[in-house]
Amino acid sequence: MQTKILLDESEMPTQWYNVTADMPNRPPPPLGPDGKPVTPEMMGMIFPPDILQQEMSTERWIDIPDEVRQILSLWRPSPLYRAHRLEQALATPAKIYYKYEGVSPAGSHKPNSAVPQAYYNKKAGIKRLTTETGAGQWGSSIAFAGQMFGLEVEVYMVKVSYHQKPFRRSMMETWGAQVFASPSDRTASGRKILAQDPDSPGSLGIAISEAVELAMQDPHTNYSLGSVLNHVCLHQTIIGLEAKKQFAKAGDYPDVVIGCCGGGSNFAGTAFPFLADKAAGKALRLLAMEPSSCPTLTRGHFAYDYGDVAGLTPMMMQYTLGHDFTPPGIHAGGLRYHGDSSQLSQLVHDKIIEARSVNQLDTFRAGVTFAQAEGIIPAPESNHAIRGAIEEALRCKEEGKQETIFFTLSGHGHFDMTSYDRFFAGELEDYPYPQSAIEAALKHLPDPTKMG
Amino acid sequence: MQTKILLDESEMPTQWYNVTADMPNRPPPPLGPDGKPVTPEMMGMIFPPDILQQEMSTERWIDIPDEVRQILSLWRPSPLYRAHRLEQALATPAKIYYKYEGVSPAGSHKPNSAVPQAYYNKKAGIKRLTTETGAGQWGSSIAFAGQMFGLEVEVYMVKVSYHQKPFRRSMMETWGAQVFASPSDRTASGRKILAQDPDSPGSLGIAISEAVELAMQDPHTNYSLGSVLNHVCLHQTIIGLEAKKQFAKAGDYPDVVIGCCGGGSNFAGTAFPFLADKAAGKALRLLAMEPSSCPTLTRGHFAYDYGDVAGLTPMMMQYTLGHDFTPPGIHAGGLRYHGDSSQLSQLVHDKIIEARSVNQLDTFRAGVTFAQAEGIIPAPESNHAIRGAIEEALRCKEEGKQETIFFTLSGHGHFDMTSYDRFFAGELEDYPYPQSAIEAALKHLPDPTKMG
Repeated sequence: MQTKILLDESEMPTQWYNVTADMPNRPPPPLGPDGKPVTPEMMGMIFPPDILQQEMSTERWIDIPDEVRQILSLWRPSPLYRAHRLEQALATPAKIYYKYEGVSPAGSHKPNSAVPQAYYNKKAGIKRLTTETGAGQWGSSIAFAGQMFGLEVEVYMVKVSYHQKPFRRSMMETWGAQVFASPSDRTASGRKILAQDPDSPGSLGIAISEAVELAMQDPHTNYSLGSVLNHVCLHQTIIGLEAKKQFAKAGDYPDVVIGCCGGGSNFAGTAFPFLADKAAGKALRLLAMEPSSCPTLTRGHFAYDYGDVAGLTPMMMQYTLGHDFTPPGIHAGGLRYHGDSSQLSQLVHDKIIEARSVNQLDTFRAGVTFAQAEGIIPAPESNHAIRGAIEEALRCKEEGKQETIFFTLSGHGHFDMTSYDRFFAGELEDYPYPQSAIEAALKHLPDPTKMG
Repeated sequence: MQTKILLDESEMPTQWYNVTADMPNRPPPPLGPDGKPVTPEMMGMIFPPDILQQEMSTERWIDIPDEVRQILSLWRPSPLYRAHRLEQALATPAKIYYKYEGVSPAGSHKPNSAVPQAYYNKKAGIKRLTTETGAGQWGSSIAFAGQMFGLEVEVYMVKVSYHQKPFRRSMMETWGAQVFASPSDRTASGRKILAQDPDSPGSLGIAISEAVELAMQDPHTNYSLGSVLNHVCLHQTIIGLEAKKQFAKAGDYPDVVIGCCGGGSNFAGTAFPFLADKAAGKALRLLAMEPSSCPTLTRGHFAYDYGDVAGLTPMMMQYTLGHDFTPPGIHAGGLRYHGDSSQLSQLVHDKIIEARSVNQLDTFRAGVTFAQAEGIIPAPESNHAIRGAIEEALRCKEEGKQETIFFTLSGHGHFDMTSYDRFFAGELEDYPYPQSAIEAALKHLPDPTKMG
């Protein structure tokens, strides 16, 4: 009874898959403050040429540089598991498989994009990367990737997380990054906030402003983003591409592909390569799982909106709850995002991808069931995908169907044990659907037709 | 340029290697409080028959049950890495390989023995396992293993660690174990200590007493130990046996085999299978790395001593610093042990295995060098092995030799980031050799000839 389906390094994909090539409706372009499409020159102030090209590309396949594959080989290809013990625990006729991305040094799928981003910036002569981080997953990943290519890395970490999550900070420092509590006195944006409120706990919106400001000012400094954008989703497709090779080895193929979804890069990386088969006529379902307290794809508006709270980024067409909506404090920090990838949003809008929302407590119940069956303790974000897989497995049981269910376990929970502690102590709660906050935020959606 | 040498599950070893078969001098038997060899009946009160048999066996090969291999396959075979980037960072002509045991659910090599121990106890009709844990590595592993076979697990966790390391506790609870701060009011041993000192911070010695007491009282409860004993070293040989297959695949073979050493099970598991080749005439060195503040193999006496502080266990022939020696508070908690495995001690005494001690700060410097080159952030214990590998690689550079260096990276440091934090803050210290404390403790060595 085989548990893991492995690939050798020689079997690692040599190209990423660009879903744009197979989309029946491509997302409309990002718009600048004047309501007109953003120019490459504007984007070029903070991104290197290769990244820009990938962001706009309509080519189906894009080569993965050897230098990137060499670093990815420190943990990739990641294992595909058959969850025999979870199937037994659920007494389901379904076959459950999961791809485990927690094997990366940073403990999640995030380095899949951090590594190529660092590489392309190094290639463009950039000396330093700036980025923001909340819980620390992305900051850790870019710290690791920067170290691999000899780039300086400055991470602006939301102040409240900086103090609450010192271990993620030590991790970044171990990889040589400088970590600053945001708002900091190193930027005009930070100083402005501190002047108004010296005790500001910070926010992702403020941290983005600080990181982007520094990248705009210095030609040797660029900015790096960990989700949402097309090039990030592209880099993550290595997950699904490997999985397809592994399924071929196992002589199986999924009926349902499941991932958790915040900004969308983990889900995109898992599902887009399978979508190519769906586009070619294969019958399969693609299911994005999101928190019911931040139900972007299931309850948001499909509209142009900013990527950040302050409205500094270009406007992108997406499902959104309103850029100034602040999601409740669920422990799956990586899923607390008001919007979603443009590509993913368009595909949900076109009913090619399904979305489903789930309560916090149910995700933790699913995570503990999984840990007790399979051993690995999952990240709170990953618990959403597990919950989706369990729901599908129980449906199969009810319907007496032996379907093949596949999900990505996006990371381990080693830096999230506080949330399990609170779960066992009965201190975790389900938040009611934040209807009035979302309604209020949706009133602030920008109207590009009235700009410029 | 290949980074990882992988084995399929079908290539996992089917037998453990018992070094006793190849030892020129076998260790003398453990002795009871009367100074006479411990009887199987006495051991049978807390261990199941299969474990007892393995503890005494002189057979070279012992079958690994299929049920055990099935659980081990959740993470085994573990990867063998070629450390290309570390070699480059050191500019050494040496080739460096490491076996990574941090891929297990508990994050170290410990489940390699926890799983068979849980299996044999289940097979013997045992309902509940008790054990002690300090930093929590062993407690986590037995919690995980107990969950896999449906055994109840009670972990007695040193009270000061229970409060300082809540994440390891949450991990054990996630796998369904009950964790008690020791001293507890659940045992006579615990109550006695609490009566004397209600604020006792606890110690491993006290926690062992509590766990053993419960196992002695209830025929359905057994005790489980995570290092030192022959059967634990036996179970860990799967590390070295896999590594040998992986070296064969890579077309290479080590000149030096290195492991960190506390109670000895990680080092034994790494080195003993290679020792078989050395016994057959192969030229290679086996090097155990220990902390200079707890230099058991390099400065201890070779004598009979107890395994625990209170003197409740049988006396075993070993290198020891005295059972009542309390090592300084280095962060490598798993290496803070006054004694060592009997088998390993005998082999060091017979000059078949080398030992070397190293200061705490040098181990952390080595760990950060490793993390920046290879990505993985190591456990403080593992940093001792890394330091040994780096010393050997630099020697090769000086001597212009292209030797092959192999070490086991026994675990990741995800639950040890506080120690890295302190290292970067300049708060970690090197302890002077604790000469007077060791001299005092060595005066308390038991004299079996005067007992009974």
